[in-house]
Amino acid sequence: MRVRKKPWADKYIKNHGDYIVTDPKNWLGKWQDRFAKVQPLNVEVGIGKGRFIIETARANPDINYIGIELQTSVIATALRSFMADPLPNVQFVLTDGANLDELFYENEIKKIFLNFSDPWPKKRHAKRRLTSPLFLKTYNHVLDQDGDIEFKTDNRGLFEYTLVTMNNFPMKFDYVSLDLHHSPENESNIETEYEQKFSPKGPIYKLIAHFTAS
Amino acid sequence: MRVRKKPWADKYIKNHGDYIVTDPKNWLGKWQDRFAKVQPLNVEVGIGKGRFIIETARANPDINYIGIELQTSVIATALRSFMADPLPNVQFVLTDGANLDELFYENEIKKIFLNFSDPWPKKRHAKRRLTSPLFLKTYNHVLDQDGDIEFKTDNRGLFEYTLVTMNNFPMKFDYVSLDLHHSPENESNIETEYEQKFSPKGPIYKLIAHFTAS
Repeated sequence: MRVRKKPWADKYIKNHGDYIVTDPKNWLGKWQDRFAKVQPLNVEVGIGKGRFIIETARANPDINYIGIELQTSVIATALRSFMADPLPNVQFVLTDGANLDELFYENEIKKIFLNFSDPWPKKRHAKRRLTSPLFLKTYNHVLDQDGDIEFKTDNRGLFEYTLVTMNNFPMKFDYVSLDLHHSPENESNIETEYEQKFSPKGPIYKLIAHFTAS
Repeated sequence: MRVRKKPWADKYIKNHGDYIVTDPKNWLGKWQDRFAKVQPLNVEVGIGKGRFIIETARANPDINYIGIELQTSVIATALRSFMADPLPNVQFVLTDGANLDELFYENEIKKIFLNFSDPWPKKRHAKRRLTSPLFLKTYNHVLDQDGDIEFKTDNRGLFEYTLVTMNNFPMKFDYVSLDLHHSPENESNIETEYEQKFSPKGPIYKLIAHFTAS
C-alpha cells in the first residue's frame, strides 16, 4: 500500500525500539532474543496497517511474529496501532522483503504470510511481485521444511500468476479458495484492513502451499 | 449434463455408425482408421451437446477429434447436430470416460479437453470427478509426453479441487484464468452450449496443465 508521508513517523519509530528494528542485518541469528519466549517464528511480508499480524499474534501467543514492511509511514501506523495494547510475541522490521535470506537463517521460519501484495500488473514489473520465482527462492531458503506460505489477494491477475509460479517452482498446494469469504474456512480468517475495505467489491483468493524437499 | 431420455436416440446412433462407436474396446489401436487422415488425436471427455468439439474440429482440420460421452441421449443430440454438416476429423464414442487407458495406447493422445464436467459436489463422490487423482492417472497414461489437459468449468468448488489435485499429482500449470471471458485469451475461446447459457451468472475458470516426465 502507498500512503502519504507522515512527519511523526521517524521519531515514533526511534522511540519504540523495543518493538521495531531498523537495522535487521544486525539481528541475523538473534531474532528470538527480541521476544519474551523462544517460539516458532512466523513472518508477514508487507504488513500494511498491521491488523492481520496483530490479531493473528493475539490469537496465537505460542508463536512469535515478525512483520516486515518497506515504507516508514506504513509501519509507523501499524506500530502505533500495536502500541495501544502491545504483545510480547510481535516485532516489526522496517526493511525490503526482497532479501529475506540475508535476514534469516535457513529453515528459521515456520510460516510466511503474504497479504494483498502490490500486484505490479505490468508484465515488465513481474519480477517485483512477491510471488515471483526469485522471491519464492528466498522463501524456500528461510522456510522450515514443514513450513508453508499463506497468500491472500483480491487481485485476479496476481492470483493467476501466483498459481502458476508456485506450481512451476514447484510447490505443493494444500488449500485453494477462489472466494474465501464464502468458504467454510472463512470462520477462522483474520482480515487485513484492506480486505475489510475491498472484499465487498469481489472475491478474496487464498492459497496455502509448501515447498517440496529438493 | 443430464437430459431426458430420447426415444429416437438408439436408432439414430445405429444408423450413423460411420461417425459413432459403441464398441470402443474393439477399436483399441485402430482409431486412426476411422478418420480421413492420420493426424494428431485430441479427445474431449464429456461432450454435452457437442458444440465445442464440432467447432474446435472445424477450426483445426489437421487434428483428429474423438468426443466421448456416457449418455445415449446426450451423444445422440450431439451427433444429430454434427450430421447437419459432418466433418472428416470427428468421431463420437459412447462410453464411460473412466477407463481411457483401456481404449487408447500409451502416448496416443495429444490433448484432452474437460469442459464443465459434473462437479459431484459431495465429498464422498469426489472420486467421480473427472479431475480426481485416479482419472488423472489414466490421462497421464494415454497422453503424449508433450500433451496437455485443457479444463474449463464454472463450478468454483470443482476448480479449487482441480487446482489442488493437478498440482499434487504433480502436473505443471501452463495457463490459469479465473475469469476466462474477461481474459485476453477469450478471443480464441470456443464456448460450449452450457458455457453460453451460464457464463452470465459468474466467472468461467480455465486451466491448462501437462504431466511431467516421471
